[in-house]
Amino acid sequence: MKASVYIATSLDGFIARKDGALDWLDEANAVVPEGEDCGFRAFMDSVGTLIMGRKTFEQVLSFGEWAYGRTPVIVLSSKSMSIPSDVPDIVTHSFEQPRALLERLSIEGIEHVYIDGGATIQSFFSDNLIDAITITVIPVLLGAGISLFGSLEKDINLTHERTQAFEFGFVQTTYLVNKPENGE
Amino acid sequence: MKASVYIATSLDGFIARKDGALDWLDEANAVVPEGEDCGFRAFMDSVGTLIMGRKTFEQVLSFGEWAYGRTPVIVLSSKSMSIPSDVPDIVTHSFEQPRALLERLSIEGIEHVYIDGGATIQSFFSDNLIDAITITVIPVLLGAGISLFGSLEKDINLTHERTQAFEFGFVQTTYLVNKPENGE
Repeated sequence: MKASVYIATSLDGFIARKDGALDWLDEANAVVPEGEDCGFRAFMDSVGTLIMGRKTFEQVLSFGEWAYGRTPVIVLSSKSMSIPSDVPDIVTHSFEQPRALLERLSIEGIEHVYIDGGATIQSFFSDNLIDAITITVIPVLLGAGISLFGSLEKDINLTHERTQAFEFGFVQTTYLVNKPENGE
Repeated sequence: MKASVYIATSLDGFIARKDGALDWLDEANAVVPEGEDCGFRAFMDSVGTLIMGRKTFEQVLSFGEWAYGRTPVIVLSSKSMSIPSDVPDIVTHSFEQPRALLERLSIEGIEHVYIDGGATIQSFFSDNLIDAITITVIPVLLGAGISLFGSLEKDINLTHERTQAFEFGFVQTTYLVNKPENGE
């Protein structure tokens, strides 16, 4: 099973402003030609399950439109939460820890999971559970915000897979994560 | 006059470990083919003056070999400092503030300055004095260190100029800085 991150950041590495705001991303997307999704649909087509944290889920709900079609979504939260009834029935809540969750999904035959949301991504990285990361760098410096990456116990080496620079200034790069050989 | 930053960072945006160590960069450079300098020599050939902070200067001295040829170097420091006698005589110390320094160099006919060192780059960014930035992203996550970018009074919009992905995994991107129209 493969676990991937697919996310946009500012050049200074923020995925959102401190309060979660994405106005800078909306502004950048305004100049993206109609029909250009920077590979998102192709990526989603390869995803068996999307895993996100509670805060990201709440933000997704605030967008109004459901962006993930019929792809099953698991919302990780250590607290009880209810899924609004107007959300697709493929959304479920889980208390599971990252490693246990991936092991269960692997047993269930899921081959590719998409990990989304700042805190969730960092916890999966901390546990060495991320296999690939695609970052789309937006040409803006925010100066402050929620960082994509957090602290690590030790360096993580990456293997560059591909880079694409879009004419509207986004630069998208995919790296594979070199996992330690003992799996830890 | 143009002021440029030309620097390598980890994917998580650090230019050095917290103690200034560059072991991760040395390790990455070990796989770079002989003779490949990722455009550094061509960049240096366009530079009239290199401006760096005291800490960066001390680190450059620790490398043993002088990497900047006969390009004049100005070391910015609010404290008095002496330049070692074995350093090329084109190295001088200045107490000047960023804007005043650039104005003086412009009057002296310098057309391109290279701004180097974490704190120095951040102070020039804060004063909206940077025109272009070339970042070479090394495929590693450090988890902690000295950040290239710092806090800002407001967003800085960038214009993507070019991106080059090297076969050994470095990704180099140049952005032009969209300065506010009033020059502040």
